Amino acid sequence: MSKTYNVGILGATGTVGQRFITLLKTHPFLKIHRLGASSRSAGKTYLKATKWKQSTPCHDGVKEMVIQPCSPEHFEGCHIIFSGLDADVAGEIEAAFRKADFKIFSNAKNYRRDPLVPLLVPTANPAHLQLIRQQQKETGAGGFIVTNSNCSTAGMVVPLAAIQAAFPGLMDSVDVVTLQAISGGGYPGVPSLDILDNVVPFISGEEEKMEWETGKILGHYAEPSIQHAEMSVSASCNRVAVIDGHLGCVTIRYAKEAALPSVAEIVAAMEAWMPLQQSDALPSAPKKAIFVHQDEDRPQPRLDRELEGGYAVSVGRVRELPGGRGVKFICLVHNTVLGAAGMGILNAELAIQHGFI
Amino acid sequence: MSKTYNVGILGATGTVGQRFITLLKTHPFLKIHRLGASSRSAGKTYLKATKWKQSTPCHDGVKEMVIQPCSPEHFEGCHIIFSGLDADVAGEIEAAFRKADFKIFSNAKNYRRDPLVPLLVPTANPAHLQLIRQQQKETGAGGFIVTNSNCSTAGMVVPLAAIQAAFPGLMDSVDVVTLQAISGGGYPGVPSLDILDNVVPFISGEEEKMEWETGKILGHYAEPSIQHAEMSVSASCNRVAVIDGHLGCVTIRYAKEAALPSVAEIVAAMEAWMPLQQSDALPSAPKKAIFVHQDEDRPQPRLDRELEGGYAVSVGRVRELPGGRGVKFICLVHNTVLGAAGMGILNAELAIQHGFI
Amino acid sequence: MSKTYNVGILGATGTVGQRFITLLKTHPFLKIHRLGASSRSAGKTYLKATKWKQSTPCHDGVKEMVIQPCSPEHFEGCHIIFSGLDADVAGEIEAAFRKADFKIFSNAKNYRRDPLVPLLVPTANPAHLQLIRQQQKETGAGGFIVTNSNCSTAGMVVPLAAIQAAFPGLMDSVDVVTLQAISGGGYPGVPSLDILDNVVPFISGEEEKMEWETGKILGHYAEPSIQHAEMSVSASCNRVAVIDGHLGCVTIRYAKEAALPSVAEIVAAMEAWMPLQQSDALPSAPKKAIFVHQDEDRPQPRLDRELEGGYAVSVGRVRELPGGRGVKFICLVHNTVLGAAGMGILNAELAIQHGFI
Amino acid sequence: MSKTYNVGILGATGTVGQRFITLLKTHPFLKIHRLGASSRSAGKTYLKATKWKQSTPCHDGVKEMVIQPCSPEHFEGCHIIFSGLDADVAGEIEAAFRKADFKIFSNAKNYRRDPLVPLLVPTANPAHLQLIRQQQKETGAGGFIVTNSNCSTAGMVVPLAAIQAAFPGLMDSVDVVTLQAISGGGYPGVPSLDILDNVVPFISGEEEKMEWETGKILGHYAEPSIQHAEMSVSASCNRVAVIDGHLGCVTIRYAKEAALPSVAEIVAAMEAWMPLQQSDALPSAPKKAIFVHQDEDRPQPRLDRELEGGYAVSVGRVRELPGGRGVKFICLVHNTVLGAAGMGILNAELAIQHGFI
Repeated sequence: MSKTYNVGILGATGTVGQRFITLLKTHPFLKIHRLGASSRSAGKTYLKATKWKQSTPCHDGVKEMVIQPCSPEHFEGCHIIFSGLDADVAGEIEAAFRKADFKIFSNAKNYRRDPLVPLLVPTANPAHLQLIRQQQKETGAGGFIVTNSNCSTAGMVVPLAAIQAAFPGLMDSVDVVTLQAISGGGYPGVPSLDILDNVVPFISGEEEKMEWETGKILGHYAEPSIQHAEMSVSASCNRVAVIDGHLGCVTIRYAKEAALPSVAEIVAAMEAWMPLQQSDALPSAPKKAIFVHQDEDRPQPRLDRELEGGYAVSVGRVRELPGGRGVKFICLVHNTVLGAAGMGILNAELAIQHGFI
Repeated sequence: MSKTYNVGILGATGTVGQRFITLLKTHPFLKIHRLGASSRSAGKTYLKATKWKQSTPCHDGVKEMVIQPCSPEHFEGCHIIFSGLDADVAGEIEAAFRKADFKIFSNAKNYRRDPLVPLLVPTANPAHLQLIRQQQKETGAGGFIVTNSNCSTAGMVVPLAAIQAAFPGLMDSVDVVTLQAISGGGYPGVPSLDILDNVVPFISGEEEKMEWETGKILGHYAEPSIQHAEMSVSASCNRVAVIDGHLGCVTIRYAKEAALPSVAEIVAAMEAWMPLQQSDALPSAPKKAIFVHQDEDRPQPRLDRELEGGYAVSVGRVRELPGGRGVKFICLVHNTVLGAAGMGILNAELAIQHGFI
Repeated sequence: MSKTYNVGILGATGTVGQRFITLLKTHPFLKIHRLGASSRSAGKTYLKATKWKQSTPCHDGVKEMVIQPCSPEHFEGCHIIFSGLDADVAGEIEAAFRKADFKIFSNAKNYRRDPLVPLLVPTANPAHLQLIRQQQKETGAGGFIVTNSNCSTAGMVVPLAAIQAAFPGLMDSVDVVTLQAISGGGYPGVPSLDILDNVVPFISGEEEKMEWETGKILGHYAEPSIQHAEMSVSASCNRVAVIDGHLGCVTIRYAKEAALPSVAEIVAAMEAWMPLQQSDALPSAPKKAIFVHQDEDRPQPRLDRELEGGYAVSVGRVRELPGGRGVKFICLVHNTVLGAAGMGILNAELAIQHGFI
Repeated sequence: MSKTYNVGILGATGTVGQRFITLLKTHPFLKIHRLGASSRSAGKTYLKATKWKQSTPCHDGVKEMVIQPCSPEHFEGCHIIFSGLDADVAGEIEAAFRKADFKIFSNAKNYRRDPLVPLLVPTANPAHLQLIRQQQKETGAGGFIVTNSNCSTAGMVVPLAAIQAAFPGLMDSVDVVTLQAISGGGYPGVPSLDILDNVVPFISGEEEKMEWETGKILGHYAEPSIQHAEMSVSASCNRVAVIDGHLGCVTIRYAKEAALPSVAEIVAAMEAWMPLQQSDALPSAPKKAIFVHQDEDRPQPRLDRELEGGYAVSVGRVRELPGGRGVKFICLVHNTVLGAAGMGILNAELAIQHGFI
């Protein structure tokens, strides 16, 4: 692929914005062209405006870029817009960019529930990308918005999608308890006094997102719309003293009438799940969407979050529910890679591959 | 109560033993009389033999006590034996003490599944204490063994007992995901490289204990035996970077035919749960067995584990399951107080009150 | 002591304010009478206005008190004012209270460098209390201001005062490197992303405070003023992942001409240091101002910060400097007890004892 | 460089051994040929024998290698031996390997004080490599032993070497207080109960190592021996809750007669320090031996330890000592890269470049 694409990043100084920049540092065909942030930062160099909190240094080209205000006229020449904006401003700004014919891949929650906007987890429901057509038709815009899921949703829906594909109609209900990393709260985010020697058993709005988003992501796309999946989802979300990596303890109960797969069959379905292939067109795609660990004490956030550069989901401890009418397992996602910025990047690669850009 | 009782502690140098000593420091009628530990420590003063890891200093009287080998002849004069022994030695030693007519309150798992031995969580199933009679009858010993539950079980069964008492037959299944403190692993216990910036989603044997013990504890005692409760229990246990305090995310599904209580009724049942009363006879009993928090982000281990000296269970975030056929909530127990040494102490107080000692 | 004193707390909702409230809960003669905070909180009950972050619950009497604005007319009837105000407002407010004849014990830095204001660490330089007389004389106010030292200064000056008293003229220079707890940064304070798996080797303004305050505290009071001590002090301050407890690694170099004490003599001087006696008049005073640990790996924040309720300083690892012309040791102070709120309380007790209130 | 060298690793299953394997994964000319460990592990595959604790997966080629006993006959064909052995066995084993003409680069402390063995920190004292000649002459062996310094020493001596080179005779004394990572203690190593919400102000033997090794490393090599540097070094070592990265707070006092450099000159000396050049022959060498940070709150372990792959030393907060007769600064080293395995690897590259292998 010799063509390169110019990328603009909205919310570039924040935690998600920093991760976009880090992940794009060596990207073969996505090139950072413009950085946008609040009016407080606009006009300054990126270096001056940003409290850089990544463990690898910011690259020199980016450090000296001047930050733009987040309005479309300052992003001319960008083929792709990544948005790491906060929800309180993302709604209006992203709408303005779409109207100005930009193609936006957003990490904000604002348009996730819009029936015309794909809620796209690339290794779970890539087919929903096609909803872009309907969105363009109905809005009349040349641009479009594609949203990521919430970070904790992403870790769970990939194995759920694998099970659903292999055993349609099997899952009746899904319970998930999360142990989520502090980087999910941004910077300054979670106060240290709240999390050292502690757990906070509540993350505002998180459970509602997981419970609602799962149904849309696992839904069936039939032109012109998505029919949500019907399983019942119950989430309980906790913040723990981990830097990166959201862990989920998932319990699936099977529908009454379903034929019951064995644990080995569930594992096989996850290992075989390959909704997209790593290639020159999809360089960020993991070699395997799901990595199933055999050790009884894995996956662990610190040891496994970087698997496949953070684009794979780790699963472990797959075991039968007492009574045999369900399965439980652990899943782990790197919440700022596949769970946020990386999800946007892979979604953009997919959109290029399918000719939407 | 003017009478005092001499106490012997087996496994006195370990984490649980240290907590026994700390909790008994100011006890009105239980007096430390003998300390026992492995042959490696026997003959040394407690101070010399012990790596003291409590945040309050060891009291002077105990520091200079000479450690005894764990055999009955060295514990003469003890009315009560507390055992914090490791499971690999507890079986034989505790049997020998019972045979020698000692009354043992054990934190070890060895006799929990023995149908003659009460598995006693004092604020959940105090009536099971009566099983002592049958034990003495069948073993012919003047002594007896009473066991604690596992630490994570204790946090969950107290609210479950409250619900069961108020709504018999309501609970069909219980799912619990735990976030457990490192002190539960003893000392040296969990390596720091395993838990800093990390979660370990596995604790050997823990899930089996929670799943089995719950049925016995919530079972019905009808002379001469206990009929286990029939609900299905599924546990998923995680170790997190918390010093003390096990948190459980509990999901209860209701039986099909049951009349469905409201969330407010569930909360009321927990708040009203009072299986035993704090008194001169039960000085360690909490004023309330369960404290239901109203703040949406509580209970938290660091802020709430010391409630009522660690003898109360904290509950929070009681809410309906999507679909309405169940309830979920958070519970928190101080794993080395009500979850271990404190449970033994309160069990002993109860046994004295009921004339077994 | 049958008399009781009414206490007002300025900045009552903050971290230091919460600690004042916690420490005064059971105080024999200091009674909370008024609580003050910013206009944002004034008029609300304490419960509503405060994000309570202490590990023991707030007592009921305080929860329902209505918060006052921080101006003198709302604090009528208070014999003592404790100030936990932020430095950006403390200057004006404390001046206004003094002018209105209140007696203020302040944790803020604003008046520490005022030559008329005692910078008082009760177990280091209690004699400086007498400076109040000069302050009242020169300001013409019936009230006065007494300031605490900075929290990290407090931990170091107590052992330094002991050495200075036993070996006048011995200390030529003092180097200190601190490892400071996050509670010193207030709430929300230090972001968790900055401190988990990390050290921040900088605390704004902290080194300057330690370097300057030490000279005043160890200075000689000769009516009407304090002559600062002349030793050179160099500080290097780090924030570490500890909840409470500032640790200092102190190196003292001896003056050229001085007779050199042995390590044992230095330890003896610290153990003998008793600038004030615990009594009914000074109930918060520690039994020993300094506790010298013998174990080579102590003091440790988590294990030793609560010694004497947090009012003692722990010292350990006292050893000769290579070459023999100095000594080095570790010191530990509970930064929100003796290092902040407790220092104010003990200062107030001392002022009552000496008839200033 | 087309030639490749076969590498054997002793102590391959431990923390340092795992880091050797991780760092060699993509090395251009050092190839892992043999793995050695204790008799408990010998005969098993590496995968089976090892509790892998690195955050990147072990590569497939290594997983299936069979572990050898640590005796020379099993390491035939190895041009280079890296030793990550524990000190209690390293002495005899390394001697046996040298006698069998192997070239050993050891992380163990056993031969560091041997006057014939270079104590080599590649970016501090590369010239000491020449001592190999004398060692071979005196031992009559074709092989030799080169040792690393202690991990915390490595972080400090690099900036000290830069200052010494630019300002000979300037440094009279060096005080260092360390904040050291838990990975320095190996696995299982530091118990989590010792370090969570805590600092341990003692690391057995560490202060002695820093105080002694600095003199040898900064010493002058004049055939046939090293004349130790004469400055006095005082160390105070602390363990903190950090995964990787040792931080040192260094205070240098200048010799009485010395001309005093400005802070800017000290910084310039560090930035100019370039004892060896990254090249095809020295692929692991950092581009800059020392990176001087400008931000007042840097370096920080989590953000800066990976600089130059962990082979650079970070320095920050360079400032004058009060009184002006010295300088203080912060330094940071990745304790398992430049501070351990990486130091051995770079030493080996250097030995190849200079024809010793």
